[in-house]
Amino acid sequence: MAIEGSKAGERSPKIRLGMVGGGSGAFIGGVHRMAVRLDDHFELVAGALSSTAEKSLASGRELGLDPDRCYCSFEEMAEKEAARADGIEAVSIVTPNHVHYPAAKAFLERGIHVICDKPLTSNLEDAKKLKAVADASKALFVLTHNYTGYPMVRHARELVQSGELGEIRLVQMEYPQDWLAEPIEQTGQKQAAWRTDPKQSGAGGSTGDIGTHAYNLGCFISGLEIEELAADVHTFVAGRQLDDNAHVMMRFKAKGGGMPAKGLLWCSQVAVGHENGLKVRVYGTKAGIEWVQADPTYLWFTRLGEPKQLITRGGAGAGAAAQRVTRIPSGHPEGYLEAFATIYSEAAAAINAARTGAPVDPAVTYPTIDDGVKGVAFVEACVASSRQNGAWVKP
Amino acid sequence: MAIEGSKAGERSPKIRLGMVGGGSGAFIGGVHRMAVRLDDHFELVAGALSSTAEKSLASGRELGLDPDRCYCSFEEMAEKEAARADGIEAVSIVTPNHVHYPAAKAFLERGIHVICDKPLTSNLEDAKKLKAVADASKALFVLTHNYTGYPMVRHARELVQSGELGEIRLVQMEYPQDWLAEPIEQTGQKQAAWRTDPKQSGAGGSTGDIGTHAYNLGCFISGLEIEELAADVHTFVAGRQLDDNAHVMMRFKAKGGGMPAKGLLWCSQVAVGHENGLKVRVYGTKAGIEWVQADPTYLWFTRLGEPKQLITRGGAGAGAAAQRVTRIPSGHPEGYLEAFATIYSEAAAAINAARTGAPVDPAVTYPTIDDGVKGVAFVEACVASSRQNGAWVKP
Amino acid sequence: MAIEGSKAGERSPKIRLGMVGGGSGAFIGGVHRMAVRLDDHFELVAGALSSTAEKSLASGRELGLDPDRCYCSFEEMAEKEAARADGIEAVSIVTPNHVHYPAAKAFLERGIHVICDKPLTSNLEDAKKLKAVADASKALFVLTHNYTGYPMVRHARELVQSGELGEIRLVQMEYPQDWLAEPIEQTGQKQAAWRTDPKQSGAGGSTGDIGTHAYNLGCFISGLEIEELAADVHTFVAGRQLDDNAHVMMRFKAKGGGMPAKGLLWCSQVAVGHENGLKVRVYGTKAGIEWVQADPTYLWFTRLGEPKQLITRGGAGAGAAAQRVTRIPSGHPEGYLEAFATIYSEAAAAINAARTGAPVDPAVTYPTIDDGVKGVAFVEACVASSRQNGAWVKP
Amino acid sequence: MAIEGSKAGERSPKIRLGMVGGGSGAFIGGVHRMAVRLDDHFELVAGALSSTAEKSLASGRELGLDPDRCYCSFEEMAEKEAARADGIEAVSIVTPNHVHYPAAKAFLERGIHVICDKPLTSNLEDAKKLKAVADASKALFVLTHNYTGYPMVRHARELVQSGELGEIRLVQMEYPQDWLAEPIEQTGQKQAAWRTDPKQSGAGGSTGDIGTHAYNLGCFISGLEIEELAADVHTFVAGRQLDDNAHVMMRFKAKGGGMPAKGLLWCSQVAVGHENGLKVRVYGTKAGIEWVQADPTYLWFTRLGEPKQLITRGGAGAGAAAQRVTRIPSGHPEGYLEAFATIYSEAAAAINAARTGAPVDPAVTYPTIDDGVKGVAFVEACVASSRQNGAWVKP
Repeated sequence: MAIEGSKAGERSPKIRLGMVGGGSGAFIGGVHRMAVRLDDHFELVAGALSSTAEKSLASGRELGLDPDRCYCSFEEMAEKEAARADGIEAVSIVTPNHVHYPAAKAFLERGIHVICDKPLTSNLEDAKKLKAVADASKALFVLTHNYTGYPMVRHARELVQSGELGEIRLVQMEYPQDWLAEPIEQTGQKQAAWRTDPKQSGAGGSTGDIGTHAYNLGCFISGLEIEELAADVHTFVAGRQLDDNAHVMMRFKAKGGGMPAKGLLWCSQVAVGHENGLKVRVYGTKAGIEWVQADPTYLWFTRLGEPKQLITRGGAGAGAAAQRVTRIPSGHPEGYLEAFATIYSEAAAAINAARTGAPVDPAVTYPTIDDGVKGVAFVEACVASSRQNGAWVKP
Repeated sequence: MAIEGSKAGERSPKIRLGMVGGGSGAFIGGVHRMAVRLDDHFELVAGALSSTAEKSLASGRELGLDPDRCYCSFEEMAEKEAARADGIEAVSIVTPNHVHYPAAKAFLERGIHVICDKPLTSNLEDAKKLKAVADASKALFVLTHNYTGYPMVRHARELVQSGELGEIRLVQMEYPQDWLAEPIEQTGQKQAAWRTDPKQSGAGGSTGDIGTHAYNLGCFISGLEIEELAADVHTFVAGRQLDDNAHVMMRFKAKGGGMPAKGLLWCSQVAVGHENGLKVRVYGTKAGIEWVQADPTYLWFTRLGEPKQLITRGGAGAGAAAQRVTRIPSGHPEGYLEAFATIYSEAAAAINAARTGAPVDPAVTYPTIDDGVKGVAFVEACVASSRQNGAWVKP
Repeated sequence: MAIEGSKAGERSPKIRLGMVGGGSGAFIGGVHRMAVRLDDHFELVAGALSSTAEKSLASGRELGLDPDRCYCSFEEMAEKEAARADGIEAVSIVTPNHVHYPAAKAFLERGIHVICDKPLTSNLEDAKKLKAVADASKALFVLTHNYTGYPMVRHARELVQSGELGEIRLVQMEYPQDWLAEPIEQTGQKQAAWRTDPKQSGAGGSTGDIGTHAYNLGCFISGLEIEELAADVHTFVAGRQLDDNAHVMMRFKAKGGGMPAKGLLWCSQVAVGHENGLKVRVYGTKAGIEWVQADPTYLWFTRLGEPKQLITRGGAGAGAAAQRVTRIPSGHPEGYLEAFATIYSEAAAAINAARTGAPVDPAVTYPTIDDGVKGVAFVEACVASSRQNGAWVKP
Repeated sequence: MAIEGSKAGERSPKIRLGMVGGGSGAFIGGVHRMAVRLDDHFELVAGALSSTAEKSLASGRELGLDPDRCYCSFEEMAEKEAARADGIEAVSIVTPNHVHYPAAKAFLERGIHVICDKPLTSNLEDAKKLKAVADASKALFVLTHNYTGYPMVRHARELVQSGELGEIRLVQMEYPQDWLAEPIEQTGQKQAAWRTDPKQSGAGGSTGDIGTHAYNLGCFISGLEIEELAADVHTFVAGRQLDDNAHVMMRFKAKGGGMPAKGLLWCSQVAVGHENGLKVRVYGTKAGIEWVQADPTYLWFTRLGEPKQLITRGGAGAGAAAQRVTRIPSGHPEGYLEAFATIYSEAAAAINAARTGAPVDPAVTYPTIDDGVKGVAFVEACVASSRQNGAWVKP
């Protein structure tokens, strides 16, 4: 129960937060706001929630924002908030992908911390430019690969880091969904429309939307970096502009003189029967683990030659890394919003340190601009490999 | 995704909230606060968080409360807040059981809405007196039987109400835990200490702490009322003052001329291997359902002679009652805090209606003072039956 | 892989077997025959398969029996087979309950080993008389409480015996089914007809048919004996003559000066959604276990304060008692027929020892006449308790 | 309960069976014998169980064979049995892979039916030659891809055939194990030794031993044929001569003018935590299914936009194809041996038809020589693709 907003001792003032995107009807904006509130480190005070003045104001009013701080564009918000004495210290960017780069740039260049949705940008060129901006800025950049906030994901990573799995041999990732099994983007479904539009999403459909999550998580848990991949990326639904299924074989870089690990990644938005079937399995010479996002409370852990163990969030066997991001006792499930909130709490810890110049607690862990660049590189490598009929490509 | 705090249209001002209990180190106080924040209908502005001035102030400071509104006792808080123009409109009571009655009384009598932890009181006499107070008050009384806030619990209830199960025959409830398998109350564990102390908890140990939850949930889903019960209540751990295990056979009142249903309830705090194994199963002439709190996203539903169905939160098959209390899409698990937050959001809906005298939306559902009286009556009936060697007792 | 029929070393000649009941259309007769064949210790050579000469002959022909050894009655079979030099050495009795007593008596008195279906008899008086007959006979009596043949049940028992669970506190048994949720006995369904007929089944419906299985298994695993029970036995389906649901609270005899354990048993034939939901959970001071018949390959085992373990048939963690009755490697599921076959193989081991006068391997384990008497006493105690409105009754 | 050996009506005489391989200590020989006995269509009367006269005789004696019919070689057995009036009608070949071809050839050329373990042969050249022999023979050839005998596999296939899934888009197969995670073949473990020896196994390790099973099952259920594959085949364990892990991307042939389906196959013998994790998932435009060998009783079936259904062996929703190969009622699990026995019963049905020249019941289904050729082609294509760094290869 380590990360409720109110901890013993001195309390930090809330961090003033703005939001770009997330107006009425958006899905992920509401998720970010609930996540923000849960641990109480931030106060939402400004927004460029929609692209028109009227909508932005209306959405802001619903959220109780000061109308003066409801902006029509991120540029306006960046400029005006940077000029205020009580201006925002951080901003959440929750727009379609193609807006991430210019919006993040506008805030980073003004020293405002950025918490940005994934994938980082809609193309690798933008991603690299954004990295340069972020590296040059004093402000922090946090990417919301929210699944890394689950306690059992942290525990999985800790098991790997502590050597419990031995040398890693295999990383198997999958993220099947079925919500795009039919061409619902042609019927005006807003979430589907931008996600299948290359102008807004970039080169990847399922690869960008969910494949990046699976890839990020596989790397986060295993601690490995990819060497090369061979992909068969495909669009099943007629008329769709971006991929809705991908099969990817991977080879990782060798670590410490060992044998390189291999991996397999499957992402799909047409796999009927799956809601958000994100699953990561990692196998080493000494043990194997399995984690499933739909049942995030559990981590299967099996040492070679021993019975399987079911480690639970908050329960016996969950180590320090998991306990650190656990709010309530075992047996009372935490879910997706809690994991999302953990990313914000980690960001808050880093921002609070930045406020005073104090060192950041080394346990603080969040996805960075580098993870973002890797994710976009992964998408483009998948597409490139597939165009070369599955040739091995280095992302 | 119906109940994020910010809805389209006019926004209600936040409800000013106080809290009794829940100082540093308490478990359930933090849960209430996270639940309060998630949907953003309340603002915590006052507290009688601990029983000493120093501790209460320290806890309040951690929560960012105005020191002037950190009180040493609920009496002081009730009196002073009632006198303020900007005084609290509602209070959360999160103390050990024996404080519920006097505290709730103090606020209800001043017209301040009460959101109170279960069980209602530490004895039936207090429960009945509190009911009289609540009935006489214009203020609302909401009991946090939080499990009723889970979307799949709502769906289970809706299936029963809509006749999908036919006539109900059986209601099987269980709530096994293992955290009191050893006498940890003798080692100073605070949660264990008050829960096993009859002066603070009342006549029931496991029956009061968790049996009431299982009982409430069985009744909530099935829509049935108990006629009589026969119980074998027991204390396994030497030196413990209250029960840590109970076996209860139940007979329900007949409904609409049908055959009375039967039930079985098991609660235990010594069942090694269970964290919070709350499970409710209801069987009717036409179908059966099963819900497990540790995996709250799922509801098993089987029509006689058809394959089992696994209905998921937010997914196909989840009806209006479930959708109404669902925040995020299917496949992204919501958990315990979300269900808890739903109780607060339901309370907020009722309080907002009370503010203006508008009728409450009939869909608004929360546990009431009557549910609280029934819960305490259940505990005392279990104990009474057991003292008579399992005779049938009418609660 | 210990019990394939053909073991290294000298091979025993097959045991000559007869069968009473089990003609065309019977369910359990076919099960016994498949179980008999699997491990190849027996050869079916005679039968009184049906009650008319014509049907008995026809059923025998289908099974390849010598027409001279197809009898119209168990009396005839007992007499004539006993007179043959190559007569049967053992008989399987697979009739409705009321025939068990006279049939078993006829063979036991002639020194022919009896392998008999459960429950032992249709009433306790017959059960006691049969015990006297069995005790006086040199022939063996084996009761097919087949679930005791599952490897993971053997392992559960071994865990208890070895002290891994500490002192046993709780034994929770349930066996819900739904096949009698409607009055199918009134439509001529043969299996339902005799099971709901007190003349053929005895005093118990669900209690006798499946409650005895759950009770036997709870005692088999825990090693406990019942002291007294309180039952609420009920018939939900209008017009049905025997119970179709029972709730039973139990108190076990103290063991070795410890505190007596408690138990709960639920059996039902109207619980919609359950096929054969037999489940046994045993909790001790040090650990808890859970076994579910529908997924018999798995045994959950949790030590207090440690992660849950999933022990698998043939896998790591499965001990000697389980390995002894395991045929194929882990991960390749064995099922119901294999467990049934194990009872026959255990019987064969005992019969082969009896043939030569050699001592029986102490590891050989099968349900005996005493288990049978206990089962019938359990049924009658449930019915008696229920008639006294749930008074505690000593079986 | 369609396939107990004894069916109503005229009974066919048992089929006289011989066995090649399967002497003491072999794993799969015992499995075949138990499977043979379960449904009682065959009688084992001869064997070339081991390669030396002494061992073959000893093994035969344990099985109760006539010593005159215990042979030292399959050649001798084929010749002598073919010359007997009461010679074997069928033979089971349960040796390492490299013996399959010469042994099967010897019997097929003499008109003796062959039931042979998979993979068909140790190389594709032998496979094709054996196909020519089989095509020229009047005798039947049955390959024991035993997993096709599971009732829920049959049901999965029937769902596809009946169009319930719509047009197939994806076939995802996996078969992870962990028993070869360490180099146990170097310690004299007999099963490991021959499976990792290219002279006995052929070009494939995990691909041949288990990849062929997964591939066969994916094709069996989906009804698809492969067009081409790209594979990354690997050996993780130092010193091992054959692969112990393979990642395979697949493209299937288009069916009926539709869009070609894609597939993914993973087989591994070093995935710690898996015993026999065979799983097949098939997704179409209208529905998806999932089947897991370790829990073979269940088939997940989800129609797009409807709740998931859990179809059970023998239960509601199981169709005619499943019922035909179901022995006992739902809720009483059948396992691996029963599925294996079904292959033998299907073979018996075909052999019995062949005895009389009657047409074979069109429902009779078993893996053929063609499936065997495809399996070996799959293994060699995987190896060839991998040698070309994952180029697409047509098997």
